[in-house]
Amino acid sequence: MTLHPSVAAVRRGVRRVLAPLAPGDAVLVACSGGPDSLALLAAAVFEARRPALRVIGVTVDHGLQEGSREQALRTVGQMAELGADETFTVTVTIEDSGGLGPEAAARRARYAALDQVADQVGSAVILLGHTRDDQAETVLLGLARGSGGRSLAGMRRSFDRYRRPLLDVARDDTVTACQVEGVDYWDDPHNHDPGYARVRVRTRVLPVLEEELGPGVGTALARTADQLRSDMELLDDLAEQRLAAIGLPLRAEVLAAEPDALRRRILRLAALAAGSPAAELFHEHVLALDALVTDWHGQRWVDLPGHLRGVRRGGVVSIERPQG
Amino acid sequence: MTLHPSVAAVRRGVRRVLAPLAPGDAVLVACSGGPDSLALLAAAVFEARRPALRVIGVTVDHGLQEGSREQALRTVGQMAELGADETFTVTVTIEDSGGLGPEAAARRARYAALDQVADQVGSAVILLGHTRDDQAETVLLGLARGSGGRSLAGMRRSFDRYRRPLLDVARDDTVTACQVEGVDYWDDPHNHDPGYARVRVRTRVLPVLEEELGPGVGTALARTADQLRSDMELLDDLAEQRLAAIGLPLRAEVLAAEPDALRRRILRLAALAAGSPAAELFHEHVLALDALVTDWHGQRWVDLPGHLRGVRRGGVVSIERPQG
Repeated sequence: MTLHPSVAAVRRGVRRVLAPLAPGDAVLVACSGGPDSLALLAAAVFEARRPALRVIGVTVDHGLQEGSREQALRTVGQMAELGADETFTVTVTIEDSGGLGPEAAARRARYAALDQVADQVGSAVILLGHTRDDQAETVLLGLARGSGGRSLAGMRRSFDRYRRPLLDVARDDTVTACQVEGVDYWDDPHNHDPGYARVRVRTRVLPVLEEELGPGVGTALARTADQLRSDMELLDDLAEQRLAAIGLPLRAEVLAAEPDALRRRILRLAALAAGSPAAELFHEHVLALDALVTDWHGQRWVDLPGHLRGVRRGGVVSIERPQG
Repeated sequence: MTLHPSVAAVRRGVRRVLAPLAPGDAVLVACSGGPDSLALLAAAVFEARRPALRVIGVTVDHGLQEGSREQALRTVGQMAELGADETFTVTVTIEDSGGLGPEAAARRARYAALDQVADQVGSAVILLGHTRDDQAETVLLGLARGSGGRSLAGMRRSFDRYRRPLLDVARDDTVTACQVEGVDYWDDPHNHDPGYARVRVRTRVLPVLEEELGPGVGTALARTADQLRSDMELLDDLAEQRLAAIGLPLRAEVLAAEPDALRRRILRLAALAAGSPAAELFHEHVLALDALVTDWHGQRWVDLPGHLRGVRRGGVVSIERPQG
C-alpha cells in the first residue's frame, strides 16, 4: 500500500517541525475541526509515534456561533479518536476588544487560551494549521492595504512557540488527506460568508488571478511572502540597530544621511516607542514624519495615532503629546 | 476659469520632475500617441514655458502593426500642434532579440532609440508616460511570477536620465486631460488584446480586485511598489558591500553567518558575476545555491543558467563552468 501524496505532503510538513523535539515532549495542536487542522492533528499523531511525543489537541470555542459548544465537543471527540493523547476545549469570551477589530480581538483571545493550555501541559510547541492558500490570501489582503513589505510578508512559519507546518501545503491536500483517512471534517459556514474580505479573496479574487495569470499564482504569492519576510526582518533589525546607534534626540541632519528604507523605519520605531499604537500607525503617518526630514518647509506638526504629534524644532525631530 | 483637476494632476507630476532643470535645457518626451503620453506632452509644453525649456517630442515606430508609420506621423503632427519645439519619429526594427522575449526586445530597442535622440539634441531628461495604473499592473504581474520584492517593486520613478512623472496619476486622469484639452488620442488595439497578460490584468484582474477589496487597490499596489523599491535598493546595496567585504572565494562558514536576505543576494551576485544571465536566474536557483550553505548534505552540484554549476568543495562555494 502506497501512501497517498496528500497525506504524505501534510506529514512531511509536520515531520520537519517536530524534528527538534525530544521523547516525552508535548506538542499542542490547535484544531478547529476544519480539514486543515484535522489533517494536521492526524499527521502530528502519526509523526509523534517514533520520537514518542505527546500530542495534545486543543479546540477553542469562541461562543460566537449557534452550536459552537456542540462543534467544539465534536472536535474533541474526533481528536481523541484520531489518537491525541490528551484533548482540551477552551471557551473564550471577548469582553473588551481593546480597540482591535472583532476578528483581531478573537485571534488574540484564541492565542492567549492556547498559550495557557501550553503552559499547563508543559508544551514547547503549538502547531497551527494555516495552509499555503491561507498564506496567499493573507498576501493579497496585505497588498490591498498597500502597507508595503510588512503586510505582504504574510504569516510567519514560526514565532514564539507557534509553528505553521502546512504553509507549503495546499488546502486541497488537507481536504484530500481527511477524505483518504476517513476523517469527517467540519465545514465552517464563516468560510462561505462573503461579508469577510478573506472569503471574497478565496472565492472570487484568487480564482480570477489563476485563470488570467496561470495556475501557479497561489504558490507564487506564498513564495513571495517567504522572500519578503526575511527581507523585512533584516531591515527591521537594521533600523533598530541604527536607532540604538543614533540615539535620541533624533537630529534631522543625522536622519537625512540614512537610506530611505532605514530612515522611515527609524521614524516608525520612534513613534511606536512614544506610544503610537502599531495597529493604527500607517505608512501615511510615517511619510508625513519623514517629510519633516526630507521636505522641511516649516510644517507646524504631524498628527499621529495615540494623540501624539511629530514636530521638528531646532533641527530635532521628536514625538510629543500635546499639552492641555 | 478654473483648471480641470485631471489637467492639474498631470501638470503637477511634470512640474516636480522639471524643477531641477535650467533655462534652455531640453526635455525629451516619449510619445506613443496614446492618452497618457499625449497628456504628458501637453503638460510638459505648459510647464516648460516659464523656465524656458525646450520640449522635444519623440515617437518610436516599431513597424510591427499595420499602419504604424501613419500613426507615428500623425503623432508627430499632434506633438507639433500641441507646441513641442521639435519632433522626431524614429523607426526601430528588431533583428535579434538576444534571447529576450519580443516585448522585452522591443522595449530595449525603444530605449536605445530614445537615448540616441536625447544624445543628439543634448537632452538631460527623457519623460515616460507610465501611470499609476501601469504601476499597479506591473506589481500584479510581478506578484504572479513570485520572484519576491524585486519584481513587486514595480517601475522606478527615475533611472539614468529617464523620469516617470505620472506614476501617481490615474490613467483616467490622462484620458480626461486629453478630452478637456481637446486632444484626440490614439487607442492602441494592442491595449485590448487579451493575448497579453498585462491586458488581462487591466481588464479582468484589477476590476475584480477593486470590486472585492475596495476601490483603492490600484493606489495601494502603486504605494506598495514605492516602499518595496527603497527596501530592495538598500538590501541590494548591502549585499554588494558584504560581498566586497567577504571577498572570494566564498567560504560556506562565512556565508552561514549572514542573514538569509543578504546571503541569498550575495549568492545571486556571485552567480551573475560568473556569467549567469539575470533574466534566467530565478529564485529557485538561488535557493538551491543557498542549500549548499544551509542544508549541506553532499549535493554534487547545482545547475545554473548560462551552463554554469554551483558547487561546494572544501567548505568553499563557487560557481564554475563544467569542463569538456
